[in-house]
Amino acid sequence: MEIIKYKKVLEYSYSLGAFPTIELLRNKNEYVEKVLIHSTFTNEEVLNEINGLVSKDKIFINDKLINKLSDKENIFVIGIFRKYKIELDNDNHLVLDRPSNMGNLGTIIRSSLGFNIHNIAIIRPGVDMFDPKVIRSSMGSIFSVNVEYFDSLEEYIKKYPKHTLYKFMLQASKSLRDEEFNKYPISLVFGNEATGIDQKYLDENSLIIKHSDKIDSLNITNAVSIALYEYSSKIEKR
Amino acid sequence: MEIIKYKKVLEYSYSLGAFPTIELLRNKNEYVEKVLIHSTFTNEEVLNEINGLVSKDKIFINDKLINKLSDKENIFVIGIFRKYKIELDNDNHLVLDRPSNMGNLGTIIRSSLGFNIHNIAIIRPGVDMFDPKVIRSSMGSIFSVNVEYFDSLEEYIKKYPKHTLYKFMLQASKSLRDEEFNKYPISLVFGNEATGIDQKYLDENSLIIKHSDKIDSLNITNAVSIALYEYSSKIEKR
Repeated sequence: MEIIKYKKVLEYSYSLGAFPTIELLRNKNEYVEKVLIHSTFTNEEVLNEINGLVSKDKIFINDKLINKLSDKENIFVIGIFRKYKIELDNDNHLVLDRPSNMGNLGTIIRSSLGFNIHNIAIIRPGVDMFDPKVIRSSMGSIFSVNVEYFDSLEEYIKKYPKHTLYKFMLQASKSLRDEEFNKYPISLVFGNEATGIDQKYLDENSLIIKHSDKIDSLNITNAVSIALYEYSSKIEKR
Repeated sequence: MEIIKYKKVLEYSYSLGAFPTIELLRNKNEYVEKVLIHSTFTNEEVLNEINGLVSKDKIFINDKLINKLSDKENIFVIGIFRKYKIELDNDNHLVLDRPSNMGNLGTIIRSSLGFNIHNIAIIRPGVDMFDPKVIRSSMGSIFSVNVEYFDSLEEYIKKYPKHTLYKFMLQASKSLRDEEFNKYPISLVFGNEATGIDQKYLDENSLIIKHSDKIDSLNITNAVSIALYEYSSKIEKR
């Protein structure tokens, strides 16, 4: 196949850089089509690791293609893989309702994995998880989580009815600090950066991360990280 | 004076967008030179607020200059101000050792203000706080905090010897969760995104935010936000 610059309609995508590519090879090896190495790349440790993870006939030296795929950035390793679909398992979930920023999605996936939540539900319209920008900002952690898309929050709830949903909403009266998280499994639900979660979901499991009135809101990646941290703290104390 | 596109050496900078410009007018009004409004901008509420905060002779309609300063983004309001220097006060501090990313600095300032820390020390080399990219990502919260630069962490400590320094380091053995923060005033210290804080500062006040071994590290803005949240939780319980 001829490899072209990423578009959402393509059946493949790629990881830019040695670190995310090694994560790809370690965690989604069965979907890897090719690994491209730049002719000037000489990091022995990285080359040995790549050679140990993928067969020689999938490794190509192709500076022209690397330059084409990586814009103007200095990229020396690219992993090309077929897109895959993996459903969530029944452990805890993170639910992102209409996420609109690719860098934020990647950073959130990284934090999520850092606090042991490896299931991410995305409610459409949401950014494309396979966009190389998402993969890059996730630092390859995207290859260690399950990501599943849904057309609505209702559809998600219908498929995973056993999860207790904790919804982060500015209109909530209960503070995150006061929630004991005694249920399992749970879903931590965050709304779109600009519009939040629909008011109709406001209930006793809606939570707010209290902050001073000097700012309008917390950045979404920071809010998600704080929630993940607090949840893991409460769990650890048991 | 003729206004040109931002460079670090200039004696002025500017806020791009209505929201950060209103924050500028509210909090650093004495440094404001001009407010530029695009001729097509008709938001009455914003225009009334601006008119209430700045005298008419400082407001200019200048589409050409707005287009020049705002690259290709849709910007309708710009506030031009003289750079200022404000020392930290003796309340709690956030210390950033050699921060290298402008977007991160702005986001960190916003979270810091959100958790009531309004003093930020930056250890050089560090990004320029007055760069319009920092101002933008801070959403104007930079105009409500004190920011002071230092040539080294030693210089900072010498000037503010009463602060107890809590240093976030991957080599620390004490978990953030176990720290009671019984001291006042305190400084929360974070190292450069890639290299962290120098090993020689490792001591009983070094803290780690524990995360799974599936990721290398947390994103710096997320780590800072988690620390600010935990500190404010501990303080609130007293």
